[in-house]
This record gives sequence, structure tokens and C-alpha cells, in this order.
Amino acid sequence: MKRILLSVAFLAFSLHAAQDLIDMAKAAGLKPIPASQAELMKVIEQKDNPLTPEKIQLGKKLYFDPRLSKSGIISCNTCHNLGLGGVDGVPTSVGHRWEPNPHHLNSPTVYNSVFNSVQFWDGRSPHLADQAMGPIQAIPEMALSAETAVARIGSIPAYVKEFERSFSGKDPVTFENIGKAIAAFEATLVTPSRYDDFLNGDTRALSKAEQEGLRTFIEKGCAACHNGIGTGGATMEAFAWEGQYEYADIGDFSGNEDGLVRTPTLRNITETAPYFHNGTVWDLHEAVEIMANIQLGMELTQGEIGSIVTFLEALEGRKPEVVYPMLPASTADTPRPQPFYEHQ
Amino acid sequence: MKRILLSVAFLAFSLHAAQDLIDMAKAAGLKPIPASQAELMKVIEQKDNPLTPEKIQLGKKLYFDPRLSKSGIISCNTCHNLGLGGVDGVPTSVGHRWEPNPHHLNSPTVYNSVFNSVQFWDGRSPHLADQAMGPIQAIPEMALSAETAVARIGSIPAYVKEFERSFSGKDPVTFENIGKAIAAFEATLVTPSRYDDFLNGDTRALSKAEQEGLRTFIEKGCAACHNGIGTGGATMEAFAWEGQYEYADIGDFSGNEDGLVRTPTLRNITETAPYFHNGTVWDLHEAVEIMANIQLGMELTQGEIGSIVTFLEALEGRKPEVVYPMLPASTADTPRPQPFYEHQ
Repeated sequence: MKRILLSVAFLAFSLHAAQDLIDMAKAAGLKPIPASQAELMKVIEQKDNPLTPEKIQLGKKLYFDPRLSKSGIISCNTCHNLGLGGVDGVPTSVGHRWEPNPHHLNSPTVYNSVFNSVQFWDGRSPHLADQAMGPIQAIPEMALSAETAVARIGSIPAYVKEFERSFSGKDPVTFENIGKAIAAFEATLVTPSRYDDFLNGDTRALSKAEQEGLRTFIEKGCAACHNGIGTGGATMEAFAWEGQYEYADIGDFSGNEDGLVRTPTLRNITETAPYFHNGTVWDLHEAVEIMANIQLGMELTQGEIGSIVTFLEALEGRKPEVVYPMLPASTADTPRPQPFYEHQ
Repeated sequence: MKRILLSVAFLAFSLHAAQDLIDMAKAAGLKPIPASQAELMKVIEQKDNPLTPEKIQLGKKLYFDPRLSKSGIISCNTCHNLGLGGVDGVPTSVGHRWEPNPHHLNSPTVYNSVFNSVQFWDGRSPHLADQAMGPIQAIPEMALSAETAVARIGSIPAYVKEFERSFSGKDPVTFENIGKAIAAFEATLVTPSRYDDFLNGDTRALSKAEQEGLRTFIEKGCAACHNGIGTGGATMEAFAWEGQYEYADIGDFSGNEDGLVRTPTLRNITETAPYFHNGTVWDLHEAVEIMANIQLGMELTQGEIGSIVTFLEALEGRKPEVVYPMLPASTADTPRPQPFYEHQ
């Protein structure tokens, strides 16, 4: 009897502690991905870009279509690979003709990017539809002109039909609509995790060690920047590290004159090494240590770092199932791929 | 009454003509993809490599995993894109550090490659499991040593478990087993079409014009090389075209001293331009005209060419649904990607 009472008391205490932690997390600005579909649709909705099933399917095709690159062999998925946590796993992204990103930037994950308040590391883009138009055109990325992108897609009747079903207006195959369709697909790439289940009230979704890690994460101040639904992505911060990681490394590419970097999401962080905007750190423990040091001005113990990493592992989310799209065939009118300048 | 009798007579005639054509096709060596799953399993079975569901799933992951390239960004699917008819759609394939294939070879489709009697354009490989090991290691393709491939995959516990489930024996993560798993997945990439339905007895599966095209195809002699289940892939032929398309163009890469090129499959041919081993011809009509000219020594009329193309369009097959695989994350022990020699 005494044993049962003790168990009940312990359970009540655990539940109470877990509920306390949930309240603490919410007070720190952390938010779960909504459990209900209706609530989720509200947080992923795109301005002037209604998320219809037709548009999402079209956007998925465009996301995987390498014909949106000059060469014909690089797609959005090349650098934001849905099978690899939404990234390419290399320090510096590789673009057209194997050019490295000139600012040594690391590809941020496409998963949960819908929760970013702004897009790109320097935050120069206000939303996904705008962002999607960037890499397609950028010379060291996909290197395709907007005009050729529209000419290629517009030359493929099956694509034209899908644009007509997805957008209103005459001649819907526009570069802006290509961006909007891709954004509609990307907005669906959210990955609820056990962490979300926990914040949504399932107090047993996180182990005791993970709950402790979440508490450490909050108490040490990580949630000052890594907050919101994205656990990051909502704020721009100075990356004030002296030496090789100094913010100036990427300042020169930035439309943003004040030298701020967008806080990355921590969701699926165990799948997206190497870390930081320049992809220089491979080990998550080291990344946590550095961040505490340079952003929060504190030395964490190995125990604290380990505890935070244990929590971060619980941010690994359930990925949406994506059926690989069959892309409509090019036609005689489709401007040809140009992998090599000299051959074509 | 007379009208009804005429209709019935016409229908009987059509059915008879269709059945005649089916017999003619079979006599010419053309074979359908079997309609029954049991029969299909027999024609796709791999020697010393049983096709188990576990192995097929593992092979799918490896097929899409860019970590099987030195750079970490090229996968089998880069050049044999399942969304683009199983090819890359460029004349000459692009490999590690943007090197063009040194022999200007065009990527053959992975779809229905299980029906090829030998693999590679020069037929130097006896089966898919052997073939798969080639491009992974080839310097102008994925450029990864067998040793590093095994070290990368073997450093990822989730992969090791899948190899243990798929293969018997100790330490099943071997380069040979990587090839076998990929082959197991590839063997499932068959695309039955209306042409197969027709040969399997559904006489209405092909339109009258398509049936006429099939008849022209056979009568002109195309099936002399494009036969078997693959409508190609079963024979090695001399590509005896004078001038820039002369076989010598690819003879120097060949292990095969007698200068023969494997006949390609015609399945999904409308999706796999540009054509020929060197990807020099974009238009299917032109390709048919050239083949008749140099392989059969005849000039086809535009009507005959159009008729054959109408038949070839009916070879567009139903692709298997492929759910994009989630790849297990790299670990601290995983040898890192090396996109740029100078950085790593």
C-alpha cells in the first residue's frame, strides 16, 4: 500500500514537474507545432498565396525539377535534400559548374523554414515565395534566368495545365508563380517531434533526461534567440565571434547592412551538420559550447552541454511522406539544358 | 439490322487484325512485361541476389544517397533521375567537380534496365549489381573509393542494421552488398505500358494508329535489334555511322574490343531525349530516321517515321510509386564529404 502511494505521489510529482516545465517553456517563448490540422494551417498560411492541393503538388514537382537550373542537373532538392534533414551536408554549398558559394555559406534546412520570420541567412527575403526565386537565378547556384525558367516550364503543356489549375489570371506561368508554387510545397514541410507532443500536453513524450535538457536549455538562455515554433528563425542576431567565424565573413553578401544573421532553427539539428552559417563546426556539442560562449558569454560544463544536446535530439521530427514526383517531359520547344557553356 | 451486322463484322475484323499483330510481334521477338506479379518476379530475379523487401528498401536509400559520391552531393538519381524517365536529360553526363563524361556518353535510363542482357553502353558488365559499383568509383562520375563508401555506410548504425537484415554473414556492409542492394531496388523499376497490355491480350489497349505504328516498326525491321521485354537491351550492335557519330567516338572507353554498342530500350523513349550513346540527337523523328538509315540501310518516308513514333509514344509506361527515402544521419565517425579538394 505504501509502495502504491509512493508511486502515485511520484507520478503526481512528475506530472506536476512536467507541467511546470511546459509553462516555463511557453513563458520563454517556445511554441509547439500545433497538433490540430486547422491550427497548423493557420501558422503555415502564406500571404497572397493560398495553399491549395493542386499548387502544393505543382510546387513539389518544381522543387525536384533540375530543369530550373541552367545546367538541367541541379534542383532545389540538391542543396535542400529532403532525405538528409533538408540540407546537403557539406560545409559550403556547390552550385552551377561546381562553384562554391562565394561567401562560404552553408545551406539552411528547408524543413520548417515556413516558421522563419525572414528567409536567407541575412534575412533579406520576407517569405518563401520570394526566397525561392533567389537560388534559381543566382549565378553560383542554379544560374537560370527568370526568362529561361518561364520559357522552359511554359514549353511543357502538362506544366501549363497545372499552373492554370493552381493560379488565376491569363498566362499563369510566371516566375513569381513558380516561386509561389515552390513556397506552397515548402510550407507543408513541417516536422512535429516528441518535443511538440510534450508542449502540446503529452507529458510523457519526453524522457526525464530530455526534460532536464529542455530546462537547462531555457535556464541558460538559449531560448532568448531559439524560440517560437521554429526554435529559431524568428530573430536576427549579431554573430560576434572574433577570428575566423566573425560575422564579417558573410557581411559582404548581405543586403542587410547591420551585420545580423538569422538564428537558425534547431529542429532536426542532429541531421543537419555541419553547423553555423559557414558550416565550420561538425560536432553538435562543440556548436552548443561555442554558442553559449560567444552569444551568451558563459562557459557551460560538459554535463550541461550533454544535457542540452540530449534535448536537441528530441527535436528530430516526423517528416511528411513525399512521393517522388514524375516530371512532365520536355518538348521540342523547351530551351535546352546548358551544363557546359562551350558545348551548347 | 444491316448496320449492326456491319459493326459486329468490323469489330470481329479488328479483333482478328489485333490478334494477328500480337502474333506477329511475338514472332518478331517482342515480349511484354508479364501482367502477373509471379511471372514478373521471375523475369526480374537477380542471380545470387534474392529480392527481399528489406533489401529493396535499403537499395532505394542507397540509390538516393549522395554520400555514395566523394563530394556528398551526387547520387545515382542525379544522372538516372526517376522523375525524368530515369535519365538526366543532358547530352553528356556531369560528374564529380563538373567533369563531363570523358567519352561524351549519355546516361541510359535506369527504368527497365533489369531487362538488359548486359549493362553499360559497351556491355562490359554482366548485371545490375556489378554495374552499380562502377559509377560510384569512376573518377568522372561519383569518384568515391570502395573503401570510403564502405566506411561511410558502415559508420551509420541505422544503415548497418539494414544491411544485417538484408544480407547474411558477418560484417555485411561490403561494397559488393552496396551494389547488390542498389540492384535489388533497380530491378523493381519496371514500367508496364499500354503496349504491354496489348501484347498481354487487351486488344483495345493500343489505338488503331498505334497498332499501325507497331506493324510498321516490325515490318521495317526495327525489332531485329529492339526486341525482348526491353524492346532493346538484349543485343550488342555495331553503330556504323560515318562521321561524327562513328562508333569510334566511344570505342576508346570500351572494354569491348569489337566496337559494339548495346541496343538501348525504347521504353519511355519520349521522356529520355537526347538520344544515342552520345546524346547528340534531340528529336525522336530524326533518331528514327537515322537508325533506319544507318542500321537498316533504308530511307523511311515521313509517314512511316511518324507512324513508328506514334507507336513509340505508347511505350510510355506506368512508373512505380517511390516514396522519397529518409536517409539515416551521418555520425562523428562518418568520413566527410569532399566536394573541394582544397578545403578538406
